[in-house]
Amino acid sequence: MKVEGKNAVRELLKTETKIEKILAENSLRDGESRAILAEARAQGVRVQFADKGALDRESETRRHQGLIAYVPDYKYADADELLAAAENKDGLYVVLDGVTDPHNLGSIIRVCECAGVDGLFFADRRAANVTDTVMRVSEGAANHLKIARVGNVNTLLDELKDKGYWITGAELGGENIYKADLRGKCVLVIGGEDTGIKRLTKEKCDRIAEIPMFGKVNSLNASVACGVAVFEAVRQRKGF
Amino acid sequence: MKVEGKNAVRELLKTETKIEKILAENSLRDGESRAILAEARAQGVRVQFADKGALDRESETRRHQGLIAYVPDYKYADADELLAAAENKDGLYVVLDGVTDPHNLGSIIRVCECAGVDGLFFADRRAANVTDTVMRVSEGAANHLKIARVGNVNTLLDELKDKGYWITGAELGGENIYKADLRGKCVLVIGGEDTGIKRLTKEKCDRIAEIPMFGKVNSLNASVACGVAVFEAVRQRKGF
Repeated sequence: MKVEGKNAVRELLKTETKIEKILAENSLRDGESRAILAEARAQGVRVQFADKGALDRESETRRHQGLIAYVPDYKYADADELLAAAENKDGLYVVLDGVTDPHNLGSIIRVCECAGVDGLFFADRRAANVTDTVMRVSEGAANHLKIARVGNVNTLLDELKDKGYWITGAELGGENIYKADLRGKCVLVIGGEDTGIKRLTKEKCDRIAEIPMFGKVNSLNASVACGVAVFEAVRQRKGF
Repeated sequence: MKVEGKNAVRELLKTETKIEKILAENSLRDGESRAILAEARAQGVRVQFADKGALDRESETRRHQGLIAYVPDYKYADADELLAAAENKDGLYVVLDGVTDPHNLGSIIRVCECAGVDGLFFADRRAANVTDTVMRVSEGAANHLKIARVGNVNTLLDELKDKGYWITGAELGGENIYKADLRGKCVLVIGGEDTGIKRLTKEKCDRIAEIPMFGKVNSLNASVACGVAVFEAVRQRKGF
């Protein structure tokens, strides 16, 4: 997999991820890029220079900014291990139900990592995966967050319930999310861009909680909605 | 200006905006598009059909989904009028300092409209403007939100202070935003994607308030940060 762009490569270098090599444009002169390459060399990462045309041909995002890192494919967390770890703590987990847009997924991963979420789950089919675009949008946050794919989101929710988790679907049409108790063993379900939370998944939720809306459009982007819901959980859980 | 895509055109039809015409792909068959065109006709909007190639040539976003509406250029609110209205209420306003990415601007507009923000200000230079892309990302929310451009953000902040507003810069390095009082006459300043809030602007702020971060990446996308900050203000102001 390729990780492209300054921010994503810089964040990548902060992780334990093995970097096979970095391809750098030979005209790079800015301080930020030089600092990234110095850090790469300090870590013993092989840096190979090439002209812009070569990077353009290698790039999958068209936004490489002169830097492309080659890493093994994204390593998902093991869903069973993540579930086992959930049992013995009052964790905060996010489950995605049908998020298909890689920009939304990347932004959601960034939200979850910044908020200190214990793990992110989504289905292994009909959903966005952690590609280099997702990695880039996440600013490398995917490397610091435990992300697991599951065969069936509804089965997962049953297992989380068995472990004492309370399942909250974040969607219009429920109680006010600011009045919902999001402390303790908490799972937030975020629906996809177009369809929202699917009917069967909604039936698995212990409650639906909505971000109150005061305008005419009354729908937030999936990653913004995730940010508002997750940070409300953080606020309550930290006692802010 | 062109407004492209189903959601944006549907939202456009809910507003008072004069639509010059709608160009529709003649193979459109889905229920959503037909409902949009029926609503357009009911409002007396001229609908013209063409083949996909014609729409592709007219499209500026490449994501027209078979529908392009032609409207007069976006009509900004008058900054002086918006300021005058601010004086006599305990309003909530958002000021952008250097947001240049149209997707971020569109998403921020959507956040502000959904949260019932009283007005959005940004500079008329070195900032993103309300283009058709912004309109599309905002899902048409730009039509329901008062947006004004100003020559100088710092002068604007002085004027808002004169009217009794308390200026909060949302940025890392300040007090915990959940402990900051965001009720009453409140202005939230959101910084740009790369530079954050500029030094001079920061000096105009009465305080800096941060969304607490618990990960390693520790930076949210500008529109997500705006969403979390604005909805925290809403939560406090509504007494949730």
